[in-house]
Amino acid sequence: MIEQEFELLERPSVPALDAILGKKFPLLDHGFVRCVDYMGNDAAITQAARISYGKGTKSVSEDRGLIRYLLSHKHTTPFEMCELKLHIKMPIFVARQWIRHRTASVNEYSARYSVLDNEFYTPEVEDLKPQSKTNKQGREGAYDERTGSEIRQEIMAISRDAYEKYDLLQEENDETGYGLARELSRMVLPVNFYTQWYWKINLHNLFNFLRLRADSHAQYEIRVYADVICQMVKLWVPLAYAAFEEFVKEAATYSKSEQVALQAILRRDFKWEDLRHNTRWFVENMGFSKREFEAFCDKLGAPTLPVEDYGS
Amino acid sequence: MIEQEFELLERPSVPALDAILGKKFPLLDHGFVRCVDYMGNDAAITQAARISYGKGTKSVSEDRGLIRYLLSHKHTTPFEMCELKLHIKMPIFVARQWIRHRTASVNEYSARYSVLDNEFYTPEVEDLKPQSKTNKQGREGAYDERTGSEIRQEIMAISRDAYEKYDLLQEENDETGYGLARELSRMVLPVNFYTQWYWKINLHNLFNFLRLRADSHAQYEIRVYADVICQMVKLWVPLAYAAFEEFVKEAATYSKSEQVALQAILRRDFKWEDLRHNTRWFVENMGFSKREFEAFCDKLGAPTLPVEDYGS
Amino acid sequence: MIEQEFELLERPSVPALDAILGKKFPLLDHGFVRCVDYMGNDAAITQAARISYGKGTKSVSEDRGLIRYLLSHKHTTPFEMCELKLHIKMPIFVARQWIRHRTASVNEYSARYSVLDNEFYTPEVEDLKPQSKTNKQGREGAYDERTGSEIRQEIMAISRDAYEKYDLLQEENDETGYGLARELSRMVLPVNFYTQWYWKINLHNLFNFLRLRADSHAQYEIRVYADVICQMVKLWVPLAYAAFEEFVKEAATYSKSEQVALQAILRRDFKWEDLRHNTRWFVENMGFSKREFEAFCDKLGAPTLPVEDYGS
Amino acid sequence: MIEQEFELLERPSVPALDAILGKKFPLLDHGFVRCVDYMGNDAAITQAARISYGKGTKSVSEDRGLIRYLLSHKHTTPFEMCELKLHIKMPIFVARQWIRHRTASVNEYSARYSVLDNEFYTPEVEDLKPQSKTNKQGREGAYDERTGSEIRQEIMAISRDAYEKYDLLQEENDETGYGLARELSRMVLPVNFYTQWYWKINLHNLFNFLRLRADSHAQYEIRVYADVICQMVKLWVPLAYAAFEEFVKEAATYSKSEQVALQAILRRDFKWEDLRHNTRWFVENMGFSKREFEAFCDKLGAPTLPVEDYGS
Repeated sequence: MIEQEFELLERPSVPALDAILGKKFPLLDHGFVRCVDYMGNDAAITQAARISYGKGTKSVSEDRGLIRYLLSHKHTTPFEMCELKLHIKMPIFVARQWIRHRTASVNEYSARYSVLDNEFYTPEVEDLKPQSKTNKQGREGAYDERTGSEIRQEIMAISRDAYEKYDLLQEENDETGYGLARELSRMVLPVNFYTQWYWKINLHNLFNFLRLRADSHAQYEIRVYADVICQMVKLWVPLAYAAFEEFVKEAATYSKSEQVALQAILRRDFKWEDLRHNTRWFVENMGFSKREFEAFCDKLGAPTLPVEDYGS
Repeated sequence: MIEQEFELLERPSVPALDAILGKKFPLLDHGFVRCVDYMGNDAAITQAARISYGKGTKSVSEDRGLIRYLLSHKHTTPFEMCELKLHIKMPIFVARQWIRHRTASVNEYSARYSVLDNEFYTPEVEDLKPQSKTNKQGREGAYDERTGSEIRQEIMAISRDAYEKYDLLQEENDETGYGLARELSRMVLPVNFYTQWYWKINLHNLFNFLRLRADSHAQYEIRVYADVICQMVKLWVPLAYAAFEEFVKEAATYSKSEQVALQAILRRDFKWEDLRHNTRWFVENMGFSKREFEAFCDKLGAPTLPVEDYGS
Repeated sequence: MIEQEFELLERPSVPALDAILGKKFPLLDHGFVRCVDYMGNDAAITQAARISYGKGTKSVSEDRGLIRYLLSHKHTTPFEMCELKLHIKMPIFVARQWIRHRTASVNEYSARYSVLDNEFYTPEVEDLKPQSKTNKQGREGAYDERTGSEIRQEIMAISRDAYEKYDLLQEENDETGYGLARELSRMVLPVNFYTQWYWKINLHNLFNFLRLRADSHAQYEIRVYADVICQMVKLWVPLAYAAFEEFVKEAATYSKSEQVALQAILRRDFKWEDLRHNTRWFVENMGFSKREFEAFCDKLGAPTLPVEDYGS
Repeated sequence: MIEQEFELLERPSVPALDAILGKKFPLLDHGFVRCVDYMGNDAAITQAARISYGKGTKSVSEDRGLIRYLLSHKHTTPFEMCELKLHIKMPIFVARQWIRHRTASVNEYSARYSVLDNEFYTPEVEDLKPQSKTNKQGREGAYDERTGSEIRQEIMAISRDAYEKYDLLQEENDETGYGLARELSRMVLPVNFYTQWYWKINLHNLFNFLRLRADSHAQYEIRVYADVICQMVKLWVPLAYAAFEEFVKEAATYSKSEQVALQAILRRDFKWEDLRHNTRWFVENMGFSKREFEAFCDKLGAPTLPVEDYGS
């Protein structure tokens, strides 16, 4: 049909990831992540970048430097050249957080079409924690073993009741159920029931997902998924993942005012050891609120004060 | 600061939509839709199109013609120039279908941050239907009043139980609850509980949403929302909405084979009245399966046969 | 690191596409398309669909049926599970049309960073055509060989002049150039100069691209690229491509009014041979404009009339 | 049609932006930006956020705090609730950079459909600069008045020649032109010719655009547009814009290694005045390259050394 020319390529592949393709990595009590397919590798990132920035040689050490340069300067388009496809099973409330990342492709198990399994999430005792007093959307502290077990019992009991009711509603045998349409019956199932989907996303958007969901502020139940995916990405594109840790995941951003304050400190108007004693000065001269100054000191890793110093 | 020039504009507005801005349109037992804001109108669509296609005059009748031309030729970018922002309250399982439309902006009520209300969806008796035998993801038929009431009782009972358990888990008063973190407590609530969000979408993507969700194949509980939104869009951009009905919502697509078959029929090799008698011919000569031929006849509105004719 | 389980997979591959990976398919006078990488195959589409719609067996004939079902019912998400990455060289004015497809990843050659080559597009004589009288954005007719050659000479002359000027501006040797920044020098180059990029897109969005750009209304210079990509897609996902031709590329949409009119014709109020004689009736009774009726007859493939019949 | 309830709203509006709606802000020699429409205001951002984070009171000072909190914690979805629509005229090479921001809606002037005006960009003498030696995609230095004028003459001459050729190709009068299709004739026009479009984008994506294009590394010819748009955004959503300056535009990110190095400096192992003398130590102990250490010192605003110190 069409005239052709030389320069045959082999498709990029990553043996380290090929070695675990399809394997289930179990998570929570019934969940998992499996890597199903991928596209590209570290070299695919630099290949795309080099069409913009010049050709040059292509040693691994140069690839590393270029990838670090790209990510640290937020030249993110070359990272879109890689794709990862995962098969994931997770509780519905986790899926609801997950789907907020819109720039991905999803095919989910349909509870309109098929009957859901009797599988729901019950946290381990050590993952059950009271409402945090300081973080309105977090948990903090711990329960003793007995209370933890009680809570688990309560969660299991209502989940089992709900599934029994689901079964009663949808069962098509006249003697045991109402044969109610599945799209309606499923409405009595709680959000700790498991669903599953195929999820495909490019590396740039995946880094955004991991930055938010592998973070300590993310809910524990989604963070464990993000942590496993981090390990997979490390196998897949080790140079890009290292750059992600260096320049995104473990990086910190200082606002305009924080930079001014940082300059003031570096010029030694302040002693490092008792930086936190100077709240008033920063509030009055730098426009910080007390809370903002505290956050700034935390970010810097400034020494905390002996408890008595907080007294007045 | 910057040198300026003439041509002051007034912001486009639509009095018919202004008149209902903020009003709640109740849906299901506790849901609603409210229009909160909008951008653009019919003229904004043609204004954007005219920068590409020429300037000319701008009478309403010409706007109508241009809008019909654009939509029928799938020149969809000018429709992106209009935006609608809604405040919606709906059951979680409806929200889960809704969010699959990715090209929209969403801010949802956070059950990690705030306590959920004791509000859940119980279908009316007439909306409770058995599982469809022909459509694996649909409902069909009806229950008698007594059975319907029983089903409603079952749904209400388990929903109330779940909320009681939720309350027990999250309540921070030691004597009445465990004070479990809200992000965990909420996991026992079924997907018929209500959530709410702000949702903003451009008109092009809204038409995609309405094409799918105001369709007879959509689940009833999301379709009622789509139907109300159709009414709002009609108030907002009447010319665009009329074109949407004509060229999208009520249009039909004929595949390559169906067009060939249609030609054969139009050339009168077949009698209209008993078109459906010719299944075999179409299967053998046109590559149709029986089911595909039936769907084709349905699309054409071909007369159905007397029951006895289906016998053999 | 993480506990693992069985079910190892092999990465899906397509030998027919592997066989041409990296090959240049030349286009226009200096352009090309090369397939650089891909993700997924026909089976990846049905694999994603089956998580929603049920598991069943997976013979090729069933894959074909499922893929046809998905595309004809516009269940497009499973097609997003496949990705294609191309390396393309094309004139800037083609790139400008191409980039309007936003749901793709792109890395383009940077004329800020690197010097552009002296390569520009000059159409062959048979591709040079006068402005169409009927289609404001098309070409129609032909030039004689001599005029065509003249036009080619004019295009080549000005393109060469422009490149000479570009060279003069950017050349850093004091005696031969001004050393003007490349980001400025390039501004004198016309849009027939070639650029190149890596372009990655999922199959669903690629079908949208091909529907528009492999269409007879697309500008010839982008259509030739789309036609080659069609051939590649056919090698890559033959079942999906066949379904695309059947249900999208070669399908026709009939508006609500056209369906009503079609019904009227099928019930034989009209003779097929002289359908076009009935313009007035359709204008008066069906709300068609003359132009709309003509388009409707064209879509149906209704016989055209002898020229004399158009007289009055 | 539908039962309705109270709570009528007025559409949010911003008098300061209304006052300049439609005004042209001239840029470069023939370009402009005009604000044509907008949706939302500062309060619309907090309104959307409060559905997630709680209701509380709504004083302006609280809005300011909430907006700062949202942006500094990268809770970006509420900023998507605002939209800006602009009418922009700019050189084609600027449009080519601009369109890389994909999450926007665009309707551009069509050179297939309409004849382009004879308007092209010629930089002022002070904006003409030699190729930078240190930044491969930048300009640096200056030309004397005479050389600058020469360069301007060269640019104008070739641009005029190109337009003359364009005219000759497309002119439909037999005696003065070839009547070549407009979609072909336009191919001889250089990328300094002006095009125009309507461009609509939400505030979150607009901030991304402004972060990149109002930055000192952006090409001057797009930066001037971004700077004017910054002024418009300041009029429109003053609280959000101030937060953008504080937490995004003027903020700095420190990588994981830079944070470790910063800690070392703050603990006073190093004197601030001669920080740059310690390159070797940071290279050997902190994994910096020389160039990275230099960039780190620049970010900190560390004092530069007397020239003689760079000697050895």
